[in-house]
Amino acid sequence: MSYQSYPSQLLEEAVEQFAKLPGIGRKTAFRLVLHLLRRPAEEVKIFTGAIDRLIQEVKYCKICNNISDTEVCPICSDNRRLKHVICVVESVKDVISIENTGQYNGLYHVLGGIISPIDGIGPSDLNIDNLEKRIENGNIQELIMALSPTAEGDTTSFYIYRKFEKYNITFTTIAKGIAIGDELEYADVVTLGRSIVNRIPFGHSK
Amino acid sequence: MSYQSYPSQLLEEAVEQFAKLPGIGRKTAFRLVLHLLRRPAEEVKIFTGAIDRLIQEVKYCKICNNISDTEVCPICSDNRRLKHVICVVESVKDVISIENTGQYNGLYHVLGGIISPIDGIGPSDLNIDNLEKRIENGNIQELIMALSPTAEGDTTSFYIYRKFEKYNITFTTIAKGIAIGDELEYADVVTLGRSIVNRIPFGHSK
Repeated sequence: MSYQSYPSQLLEEAVEQFAKLPGIGRKTAFRLVLHLLRRPAEEVKIFTGAIDRLIQEVKYCKICNNISDTEVCPICSDNRRLKHVICVVESVKDVISIENTGQYNGLYHVLGGIISPIDGIGPSDLNIDNLEKRIENGNIQELIMALSPTAEGDTTSFYIYRKFEKYNITFTTIAKGIAIGDELEYADVVTLGRSIVNRIPFGHSK
Repeated sequence: MSYQSYPSQLLEEAVEQFAKLPGIGRKTAFRLVLHLLRRPAEEVKIFTGAIDRLIQEVKYCKICNNISDTEVCPICSDNRRLKHVICVVESVKDVISIENTGQYNGLYHVLGGIISPIDGIGPSDLNIDNLEKRIENGNIQELIMALSPTAEGDTTSFYIYRKFEKYNITFTTIAKGIAIGDELEYADVVTLGRSIVNRIPFGHSK
């Protein structure tokens, strides 16, 4: 009986499933499964039930593609938010990250991925057509590209820019530079270089 | 909208359930849930199904209390194993750890916990009565106490020793000492002290 084999096939299957989650190895998976085995059965049912229900009933906002329990998400249906600014993000995770900053009061558009030829993801796999509809129908004045500053993120931003530059909207992108609290000494040259090229008037910096 | 609140109650509940697992914080829980959301629904159903099935159908060996898909576990029903030696362990996890060493060929007895007054776990909560039945019925010659060398583990070992010393069996315990590969310099005084007191003839050490 090696580490790979347990005295129970049921146990083996549960461990294997847990180990498929990102960042969870077989040892951790085994620990998690043993934890669940020690809990009352009803409690475990609540755990798996919450996941099943999410997968079955989850909706995505028909406007911005954000995750939502309703047809239109709480952000799109919030009248206090600016309707003429759209922040384009890769995923729901980014919406929540930006919301947490408390610094943004416009709308979002969740692409559901970024262009990545290696992973076989092209523009048609992303939620870009809906963005065009929003631009055509609404009074959109600004598109903020808030994608990761990686090759894929930059490619996607550029694709969207080229596709929509014919519309009368301002394109902006989130500032890249030295992270607050970071030591210049440890910043990589590309980031440091961009932070000099894209320098801003002193008093404006916060 | 703070970090604690998501645009979807279903999402919130799934994250909350994941965050109840040991060693999984809310950030990791959120990442795991988003991962599941990106997978095909059937794949997630296999994940939750494996857990549900384990919880519903799991059996414990009626002899040794090890986890098993059958009434008697593969170890107890293996005729090549020594039937007169029982290794007493806290949990299924320890059975698998010891099996992985490839150094043991006897049987096990899984207590299902250790005596811990702080957690309200007394001897009656453990699978000790069944151990007595095995000793009375079988031809048991040796009980190896393989519990963690902690206050709780030592208490439990001592309790079992006192309860069963009336039987004609040898009690042994796993060796405690410096871990293989460890530097003496960093060993704690108690471990180092015990490793000197319990020293063994030179040639026997492996």
